[in-house]
Amino acid sequence: MPDAPSERTRIRRHPERGDYDRGAIDAILDEALICHLAWVGDEGTPRIIPTIHVRVDDTLYVHGSAASHTLRGMRDGRTICLEATLIDGLVLARSTPLHSMNFRSVVVYGTPREVTDPAERDMAQLALVEHVVPGRTAEVRMPTRKELKETAIFAVTLDESSAKIRTGPPMDPDEDLSADVWAGVLPVHAAYGEPVPSPDLTPGIVPPPYVTGYRRPNAGEDRTRGITS
Amino acid sequence: MPDAPSERTRIRRHPERGDYDRGAIDAILDEALICHLAWVGDEGTPRIIPTIHVRVDDTLYVHGSAASHTLRGMRDGRTICLEATLIDGLVLARSTPLHSMNFRSVVVYGTPREVTDPAERDMAQLALVEHVVPGRTAEVRMPTRKELKETAIFAVTLDESSAKIRTGPPMDPDEDLSADVWAGVLPVHAAYGEPVPSPDLTPGIVPPPYVTGYRRPNAGEDRTRGITS
Repeated sequence: MPDAPSERTRIRRHPERGDYDRGAIDAILDEALICHLAWVGDEGTPRIIPTIHVRVDDTLYVHGSAASHTLRGMRDGRTICLEATLIDGLVLARSTPLHSMNFRSVVVYGTPREVTDPAERDMAQLALVEHVVPGRTAEVRMPTRKELKETAIFAVTLDESSAKIRTGPPMDPDEDLSADVWAGVLPVHAAYGEPVPSPDLTPGIVPPPYVTGYRRPNAGEDRTRGITS
Repeated sequence: MPDAPSERTRIRRHPERGDYDRGAIDAILDEALICHLAWVGDEGTPRIIPTIHVRVDDTLYVHGSAASHTLRGMRDGRTICLEATLIDGLVLARSTPLHSMNFRSVVVYGTPREVTDPAERDMAQLALVEHVVPGRTAEVRMPTRKELKETAIFAVTLDESSAKIRTGPPMDPDEDLSADVWAGVLPVHAAYGEPVPSPDLTPGIVPPPYVTGYRRPNAGEDRTRGITS
């Protein structure tokens, strides 16, 4: 397994849960619908927003309103931190302190680069939609020039990233094993309901297979498929 | 609706999605399994970890290893930022830029107080387990003195908190409505699988109803029930 790329990405608590392999990192970033973006505000306090991201090869893209307070803070070369977490199970131990969760999380540090090249901007905007709903961009209208101007896109490399993963049953000590209580894991996953059509939808248009059969991608799936040629 | 408690909690983008009502804030914090905790590291860079929280009345508790790097940074009076987000749906518009998500998120700013009073520590530790699995603490062993020493608990008040909520269909402009493409919302929710018993579970012990019938609490449910008397 590769070593941590920097001290701040090193997993210190439960180092056995750390994974610095890009395959593990990419799979988590690709499956997670959103990430949590932190930066240090003008007043020196930490700020967080949830936001949509997409990984394209070695780059993570995030976007937002060009007028946004958040994104203004990203323009001046400050370090940002992005984190994405998937919850896989609730771990029920035989004592309160050993309760836990099975999870997969990624933390990325970097200095964001504002994307200004028109081709990269187009690619990233499509990739952001495809990250959430693969197959969607082939069917919908592209942004107008005005809409493009209203959106700022930032890129962060994955050079400084790490994953932390917990799997498996609770780890009760031997002296707790005879307790007369159920112990184990309750699996957690995302599920999708019946598609709800827009009230203004033209009658007769049915939801496409990428909606009715929606699922998150498997580990390592190529998110650029159909976007870059 | 109450006004924002501070400028940094004010929702600037889509202010119509802001909600400063404690009922809305509490419901999101109570339903979310985890939150995302940001602080400014010693080197001045933003840091984030996912962590388990619990709201008890006007206070949010988080815990961690007493030896943790994160929690050491919380002891010196620095401001922290906590954020929790629930995703309710994928919003499929007729153009790429109007794609969105239905979500409910909360952001809290505060200066953490380390909890040292033994009664408050006990209450908060039980509340943290009950937040994840209501009903569990009545059945399992309490922490030993050594385990208690290994855990640090911090409290943040909800005085400076805000919610941001998006609901409803995509908001396509009139000129896009005739597009021959499905538009609407794909609902997203958390689902729970079959409980997986620990390999070391005594044969014959079946999962309790709070596991087989697991669900997240409704809005406003009292998380202290059965913990404080």
